Amino acid sequence: MRNFEIELQNLGKKIEKALDNYLPKADEYPPKIHEAMRYSTFNGGKRIRPILTIKAAELFDLPGEKVIPTACGIEMIHTYSLIHDDLPIMDNDDFRRGKPTCHKVYGDAIALLAGDALLTHAFRTIAKNAQIEGISLQAVIEVIDKVSLAAGSLGMIGGQTIDILSQGTPIDEKTLFYMHNHKTGCLIQASLWAGARLAEAPVSDLNKLDELGEKIGLIFQIVDDILDVYGDEKKLGKPVGSDKRNKKNTFPNIFGYENSIRLVKTLSEEAKEIVSDFKNSGFFMQLIDFLIERQY
Amino acid sequence: MRNFEIELQNLGKKIEKALDNYLPKADEYPPKIHEAMRYSTFNGGKRIRPILTIKAAELFDLPGEKVIPTACGIEMIHTYSLIHDDLPIMDNDDFRRGKPTCHKVYGDAIALLAGDALLTHAFRTIAKNAQIEGISLQAVIEVIDKVSLAAGSLGMIGGQTIDILSQGTPIDEKTLFYMHNHKTGCLIQASLWAGARLAEAPVSDLNKLDELGEKIGLIFQIVDDILDVYGDEKKLGKPVGSDKRNKKNTFPNIFGYENSIRLVKTLSEEAKEIVSDFKNSGFFMQLIDFLIERQY
Repeated sequence: MRNFEIELQNLGKKIEKALDNYLPKADEYPPKIHEAMRYSTFNGGKRIRPILTIKAAELFDLPGEKVIPTACGIEMIHTYSLIHDDLPIMDNDDFRRGKPTCHKVYGDAIALLAGDALLTHAFRTIAKNAQIEGISLQAVIEVIDKVSLAAGSLGMIGGQTIDILSQGTPIDEKTLFYMHNHKTGCLIQASLWAGARLAEAPVSDLNKLDELGEKIGLIFQIVDDILDVYGDEKKLGKPVGSDKRNKKNTFPNIFGYENSIRLVKTLSEEAKEIVSDFKNSGFFMQLIDFLIERQY
Repeated sequence: MRNFEIELQNLGKKIEKALDNYLPKADEYPPKIHEAMRYSTFNGGKRIRPILTIKAAELFDLPGEKVIPTACGIEMIHTYSLIHDDLPIMDNDDFRRGKPTCHKVYGDAIALLAGDALLTHAFRTIAKNAQIEGISLQAVIEVIDKVSLAAGSLGMIGGQTIDILSQGTPIDEKTLFYMHNHKTGCLIQASLWAGARLAEAPVSDLNKLDELGEKIGLIFQIVDDILDVYGDEKKLGKPVGSDKRNKKNTFPNIFGYENSIRLVKTLSEEAKEIVSDFKNSGFFMQLIDFLIERQY
């Protein structure tokens, strides 16, 4: 496990270097907006989504560097979603990964605009993948379509909408799964799909990655929910118990702790079975274990 | 002029039909977000930006229908920017075009998400232009890059950032021009550029359209500023005087009414000179007159 975490960290550093390269510099005019965009981007994230894009490309023998623009674009979309989620008109969270959230530092208006700007810049960054040798323009266009669908009102934003509308009202099992599949799963699916599509993977394999993405997304979200109840505030970098305070519908709240743990185990077995169909699946096997055992 | 307004209205109707087609239906799950996206999209806008895209394509002999997805994507970006601008954490406007603003109807959180969703969906919609016969994938990729740059922190959002940061503080002439060129001009430039690029216009002409877009953007914004002081509330569909209340830096505030009118006239002459270089420039000549004489 220790070696695997080092591998993740090294991949994370590579992505951060690329993000630094693709984002406007902090002193570009008007500096305030670029500072805010960078503040939230370089905030100690695990970079799971861009890592999935890189590793999905490598599963189909395309070197990971070839998909870095797309990987960075997806991370920008993830970052924007966190900035907007933290706003007082949404979840009203003051801390993330041990630091004050964007609007606590820059004010609500600039935080709103910084989120908008990251989302906007993401598509330019993904489009830059078309300049990389050996990448087909058709694949880039399809990736833009897939990422936009996954991040939009039929994907991530659809999940956030249910999250907002259902606060304080218990929801049924089906709605809970819809909410988490969309809030977290869709962008994770798109991260995998994008890397594989740029590597010209066949449709049957793209469909398998969509299934894998759904499992990984749910594992990720259920573990998140569990950590919000039973986690260590120091390791998490934010206060626990915020879901309960916001009367959120979460897995432990609806199914209980034991059942949530059982669900994560089943999902991880199913995910590993999908992964076992691919050659060179070692990374993904370890990643699934990491996602279950993570404490932050 | 009357005939020209009818032409604008007919083009607007064509665009609205296409927007209806490209947006998720109002009853798609979760319906609340799709209702909010549609509420703000179908709110009586003039559709100037998508009309510019269509007419710029026709300037280079590409039928306007061939660029409809891009035209619609740009209008979605314009609509998202209005929803976010109207939020209480930004300009806090309750009315737009005679109707309550998105957050007054759906609440702040759903309005925020509806704006995010329109921005996200815009890029998918532009990407759909790649499916239209005779359009090159390279042109679509470049349009995505141009639109993203124009709408982002180095474009429209850069202008909004200065607008927010300078409220209540007088700014110099250079900053005022930066603010308006970016807040309004950049997306208008991109609207023209996109239509012409999809029509495979030569680079020298694309550069001319960028110049024209800058002039049209400034005319548009100065007239907007003037109408906010001297306009008719009924025709505008919103209360006048909001710029003064929000202590905004506007052209009439900084240069005075007479000088602002003079500036609009100079800009329109310069714009017409650029337009006169193109054959079939009749539409643009009339549009420039319309933008100066408009009362809403």
